[in-house]
Amino acid sequence: MKVGILTIGNELISGKTPDTNSSFIARQLHAQGWQTSVIMSVPDDEDAIKTGLNHIMSLSGAVVVTGGLGPTADDITTSATARAFGLGIYTDQAALKHIRDRFEKFHLKWTANNEKQAHVPEGAETIKNPVGMAWGYSLKRDGKIIAVVPGVPSEVKRMVTEGIIPILRKEFKDAAGHVESRTIKLSGITEANVDQVLADVDFGSLGVNIGFYPNFPEIQIVLTAIASTEKDARKRTTAAHERVSERLKQYIFAYDQDTLEGIVAGVLTDKNLTLAVAESCTGGLITDRLTDVPGSSAFLERGVIAYSNNCKADLLGVPQDVLREFGAVSEKTAIFMAEGVRKLGKCNLGLSTTGIAGPAGGTAEKPVGTVFIALADGTRTFCRNYTFRWDRRRNKTMMSQAALMLLKRYLAGELEHER
Amino acid sequence: MKVGILTIGNELISGKTPDTNSSFIARQLHAQGWQTSVIMSVPDDEDAIKTGLNHIMSLSGAVVVTGGLGPTADDITTSATARAFGLGIYTDQAALKHIRDRFEKFHLKWTANNEKQAHVPEGAETIKNPVGMAWGYSLKRDGKIIAVVPGVPSEVKRMVTEGIIPILRKEFKDAAGHVESRTIKLSGITEANVDQVLADVDFGSLGVNIGFYPNFPEIQIVLTAIASTEKDARKRTTAAHERVSERLKQYIFAYDQDTLEGIVAGVLTDKNLTLAVAESCTGGLITDRLTDVPGSSAFLERGVIAYSNNCKADLLGVPQDVLREFGAVSEKTAIFMAEGVRKLGKCNLGLSTTGIAGPAGGTAEKPVGTVFIALADGTRTFCRNYTFRWDRRRNKTMMSQAALMLLKRYLAGELEHER
Repeated sequence: MKVGILTIGNELISGKTPDTNSSFIARQLHAQGWQTSVIMSVPDDEDAIKTGLNHIMSLSGAVVVTGGLGPTADDITTSATARAFGLGIYTDQAALKHIRDRFEKFHLKWTANNEKQAHVPEGAETIKNPVGMAWGYSLKRDGKIIAVVPGVPSEVKRMVTEGIIPILRKEFKDAAGHVESRTIKLSGITEANVDQVLADVDFGSLGVNIGFYPNFPEIQIVLTAIASTEKDARKRTTAAHERVSERLKQYIFAYDQDTLEGIVAGVLTDKNLTLAVAESCTGGLITDRLTDVPGSSAFLERGVIAYSNNCKADLLGVPQDVLREFGAVSEKTAIFMAEGVRKLGKCNLGLSTTGIAGPAGGTAEKPVGTVFIALADGTRTFCRNYTFRWDRRRNKTMMSQAALMLLKRYLAGELEHER
Repeated sequence: MKVGILTIGNELISGKTPDTNSSFIARQLHAQGWQTSVIMSVPDDEDAIKTGLNHIMSLSGAVVVTGGLGPTADDITTSATARAFGLGIYTDQAALKHIRDRFEKFHLKWTANNEKQAHVPEGAETIKNPVGMAWGYSLKRDGKIIAVVPGVPSEVKRMVTEGIIPILRKEFKDAAGHVESRTIKLSGITEANVDQVLADVDFGSLGVNIGFYPNFPEIQIVLTAIASTEKDARKRTTAAHERVSERLKQYIFAYDQDTLEGIVAGVLTDKNLTLAVAESCTGGLITDRLTDVPGSSAFLERGVIAYSNNCKADLLGVPQDVLREFGAVSEKTAIFMAEGVRKLGKCNLGLSTTGIAGPAGGTAEKPVGTVFIALADGTRTFCRNYTFRWDRRRNKTMMSQAALMLLKRYLAGELEHER
């Protein structure tokens, strides 16, 4: 089955906002074994929307539309869609109630233009919005499905996977078999290396489609099998998964929706371990990531952003002569920081980073991107160093990723046989 | 003048590679005062390319095409374009020499399929590629321009700005005027409220186009004026800017490429002030944002992520009876944290947050999203509280934004007349 994608918004057309929804939606369609016919962006303009819709429908069995469902005057997707098919518009009472409830819950001031967000073309079925205001809807015209959701990326992610994909699967059930999809997340390896390591594996003969998606700082491998039974689809995906694991085990940190910080947080909580973190170059990004996990107060006792040498010395106990002799960016300093913050927080584990995020501060010996990462458990202290080659923000991200990977591997007992 | 954009490639259509070229090209067109009619991505398929080209040309005076000029069998953009207009193909000798020279320079092994990269439709003029292999070309059909370049983003950047824009400017010189664009960034107000506050301002009569772009946690207002002289375009934008400032001054924190953390960092550095931060609910996000600014070690002395009550008490000096009586999430605790971290770091300023990011931990009195933010300068301590209504990550983001806004307003002297 062919599905087209139409994203609507002046901000896309002016280049102000990159259209991230299209590639997300295309990947979801691809994972179902469907083909994307065309991806199109048009301005918030009735003629442009109508012309775009007609063009895409001439090439596709369905079209996924995002954007232009907000309260303001330039949000005209629903009226343009209704007019394109000669339909009237009604206010969906359940959608309206959802919006009014959100206004009440969040103590927002109601203005009349918000009712517009509950407008739906006649004959459409609504698609619930679990994370935002406006609901979406799907229409069937001439045997083709038109499904419309708001353009906010977080809402698109939920409403496409939970709303639109199930609708399309039901409507076009002969087109798709049972689909099993698995995402394998890797860190510490490049896309080109993944490609090379797996080059001689014949995934086609396993009946599995493989895709690589760099998603900084991770690489994602997506395995998709389509088969006549669910069991067979799962069996194929599992076989392919085993082939990937055999060759890339040490880089794999999570599957599907799991995150690195989520995995680490889960193990720390389950094992009843406490953690204190001392960050220099990562500037709080490690604890920011860990505290994105609900319930992280169960294991995260404290963090110290030791941006000055004073802080490293007076709070974490890094000796002044170590700072003088080896420098703030050194293995010795990282080790003292990890051990010091562990003691300060009376925790099971202490994790530290010290490095040079850039763009300034590099030397021949310690270039921009250098980082020392240490992990102390009271008995042993592990230290690793890396040199990353990105800009400041991406260096910080890679450094936080490497620190969380070290912690993850420690918790999995994989550092035992290392130093 | 209207210009369409066509990006060609199976990797775009499968969602494997996000299409970053389109928004870059759209921005370049917008900066010339031209309107993008439509942005479209199609697979490496002759029918899809021809159909896409025809559709875009029916809506536009010109079309910019990227992708499908490589050496492999699936690169068919040139043959599809030539056939769409009934043209033959020739090998451009200058383009071929450029490719052969690069092979020699980089010691690459020549294979016959590389000659394909010098194929050009009859009647086309070539566009040089200063950073890659294949040249591009432009064609004129029925008074409309079709300009084609390879899809590699670094090549697109150079060839669009240095090759295509000059061609279009020459062809459509009456169409373009001088363009002046200004982005105003606001925080602490919703898009709907911005819309309402500005509803009765007639920007059209000022000769200015206005757009609102929510860019969480900010709102951006973009003013664009097109006039026959640069001076006139700037005058119009400035007049519109004044109308926005009159009504929304207290929400404005930056312009154009500036960020909130960048503005705050600049003022702290200029005034030679030092800062220590104590974060509970924001978990390090404030220091993470501040340390994204190069040179932040000039003002950021340290941060403390006080996730446990122990840390609030032993490191920041929040009295145990305050924690017991008022709770960790309270005005009193926030004030003690700000004053405590300021003293601990021997800094000019101490900034603190304590709150409930969610999804659990809320009560009737202090619901999820509640935050207390305090700022101490040794003489006075300011405290604000807010209740945000988002998910955990977005609550953290809004809380960090509110804390940085408080700091920014303090530094601008705007809190003097408040409590």
